[in-house]
Amino acid sequence: MSDLVLVGDTGGTNTRFALADAASGQLHHIRQFRNAAHASYEAAVSAYLDEVGQPSVAASALAFAAPITDATVRLTNHDWTITKAAIQARTGGRAPLFLNDLEALAWSLDLLPQGGIEPVGPSEATAPEGGRLVIGIGTGFNAAVLEGGLGENRRAPVVRVAECGHMTLPIETAEELSLRDHLARGRGRASVERALSGLGLVEVHDWACAHLGQPAAPLSGEDITRRGLQGSDPACLLTCEMLVRFAARIAGDLALAYLPYGGIYLAGSVTQALRPLIQSARFSDMFTAKGRQRDLLAGFPLHILTNGTAALHGCAALALSQQPTA
Amino acid sequence: MSDLVLVGDTGGTNTRFALADAASGQLHHIRQFRNAAHASYEAAVSAYLDEVGQPSVAASALAFAAPITDATVRLTNHDWTITKAAIQARTGGRAPLFLNDLEALAWSLDLLPQGGIEPVGPSEATAPEGGRLVIGIGTGFNAAVLEGGLGENRRAPVVRVAECGHMTLPIETAEELSLRDHLARGRGRASVERALSGLGLVEVHDWACAHLGQPAAPLSGEDITRRGLQGSDPACLLTCEMLVRFAARIAGDLALAYLPYGGIYLAGSVTQALRPLIQSARFSDMFTAKGRQRDLLAGFPLHILTNGTAALHGCAALALSQQPTA
Repeated sequence: MSDLVLVGDTGGTNTRFALADAASGQLHHIRQFRNAAHASYEAAVSAYLDEVGQPSVAASALAFAAPITDATVRLTNHDWTITKAAIQARTGGRAPLFLNDLEALAWSLDLLPQGGIEPVGPSEATAPEGGRLVIGIGTGFNAAVLEGGLGENRRAPVVRVAECGHMTLPIETAEELSLRDHLARGRGRASVERALSGLGLVEVHDWACAHLGQPAAPLSGEDITRRGLQGSDPACLLTCEMLVRFAARIAGDLALAYLPYGGIYLAGSVTQALRPLIQSARFSDMFTAKGRQRDLLAGFPLHILTNGTAALHGCAALALSQQPTA
Repeated sequence: MSDLVLVGDTGGTNTRFALADAASGQLHHIRQFRNAAHASYEAAVSAYLDEVGQPSVAASALAFAAPITDATVRLTNHDWTITKAAIQARTGGRAPLFLNDLEALAWSLDLLPQGGIEPVGPSEATAPEGGRLVIGIGTGFNAAVLEGGLGENRRAPVVRVAECGHMTLPIETAEELSLRDHLARGRGRASVERALSGLGLVEVHDWACAHLGQPAAPLSGEDITRRGLQGSDPACLLTCEMLVRFAARIAGDLALAYLPYGGIYLAGSVTQALRPLIQSARFSDMFTAKGRQRDLLAGFPLHILTNGTAALHGCAALALSQQPTA
């Protein structure tokens, strides 16, 4: 049996682990845990390794929904402090690699199994050379850029991280200003992820109910997107339209910042929930609505990243790229 | 005498040329031409080389206020089409390098003479490692990122270009929406450079006069910033405050997109004109006003790029980096 790499993907609520084959990157034993079920991250690692009967691993690559600046991670939405030393003490092997979750999605692009990526609009024949921009809309909002990677003329891959969820929510109309003021209440400002995230979905719906004079309805995010896509509930419909409008506008703005000639990949649970609207011609129209730069925008191929374990594949891709040469 | 490199910086109105020493990068014979005075770019090159008595050069690196995608450049604000072949036919030497003007500013950072960079706020002891973000506010708005470069652990420099001037103007208040609507009139949208540019300054002033119930005053950009800084004219003052507010907000947004741990460098004629306001504590406060990310923002050192020929230095830096090894 070849060496195994522990890969992980930790959000605010859940953690997924898997074992990756260090030669092929293939994933085995994918399991999901609720963070709240474990006192610490190391305890979750321990429980997973016990469950799959693997006392130690050769290496590990672990993604977190948090900024990664050094050997310690503090989760944004869960009270865990995670250190490389504590993990290595449990797993053995080399010191773990830490990645931001969007960084992991960007690393995954060349290692995803067939069918994990769905084109938006007409499918282009081949992906052109150039950076690839991943935009995640889920628990939070963020982006990462993969430069290089697979392909004839591509250089060694490099992933650039960002904190795009905290950028200013780009509003353009009086109706959007009313939404922005609702989202900014008690906070002084409204960032991109205040609208474009799972929590954002619920808060935009609160605004939509008030805006349409409907009684407030405490629906879950799943209910809101389901009813919105059915078109049966005006507040849910308006909520979905607002999210899709902001997603298209911000994807276009980020495309102008990163010029991703290799394509744009929309990911995350909110993206998946809004897929039928993102696949509409209206989304592409809003994405390219940048005045004289319309043709430039139209040249960036759009996709939806549909593989639910893409971040785990990305952890494996990073680990494979960093293996000591034999 | 060592080999000479022709360097150039072409905006919508003027072109500057110089000769750079291919060993040191030092500039000689800096001259400025009005684009309108020449029928073609090659004619301007010819006139310059005749004037300085240099019939040919070893290489050339030429910056343009235009997107650079291939061997042909079409200026955005002046009717010139410029090809590498036509220039090389006149200059001799190697095929010219074409750069975007912001790309040239980013290349300049490690080659500027002493005093070309002014810190905003307290000066930090040393520039930390990391990408450096240049933001230009002049004829238009744009940004570029220099990765690597001088310094102990820096890798070979790479400059990433962008088209940030076409991003959505990020408004937050009803007053700003009124400005946005004024700027969007007849255009369907308002981009960042619709406010943050030389022309933007004049259009924001038109709005400010109407907004304050003052008669419209057809002032030049220079007059508007001079009166605004004096504080004597309410519409000019409001115009300057709006531009500085947007500059701070957008610099903060772009910092979240690029995470420029190596610092931010504000450049361009509008930046120079608004220098006293950019040097105020209010600017830094608005720059860091990103909620929970305030500390992250405060960690990106801010500067003003004051050297008026920085783009020419950047052209020289690129040419030096690409010299064939002896």
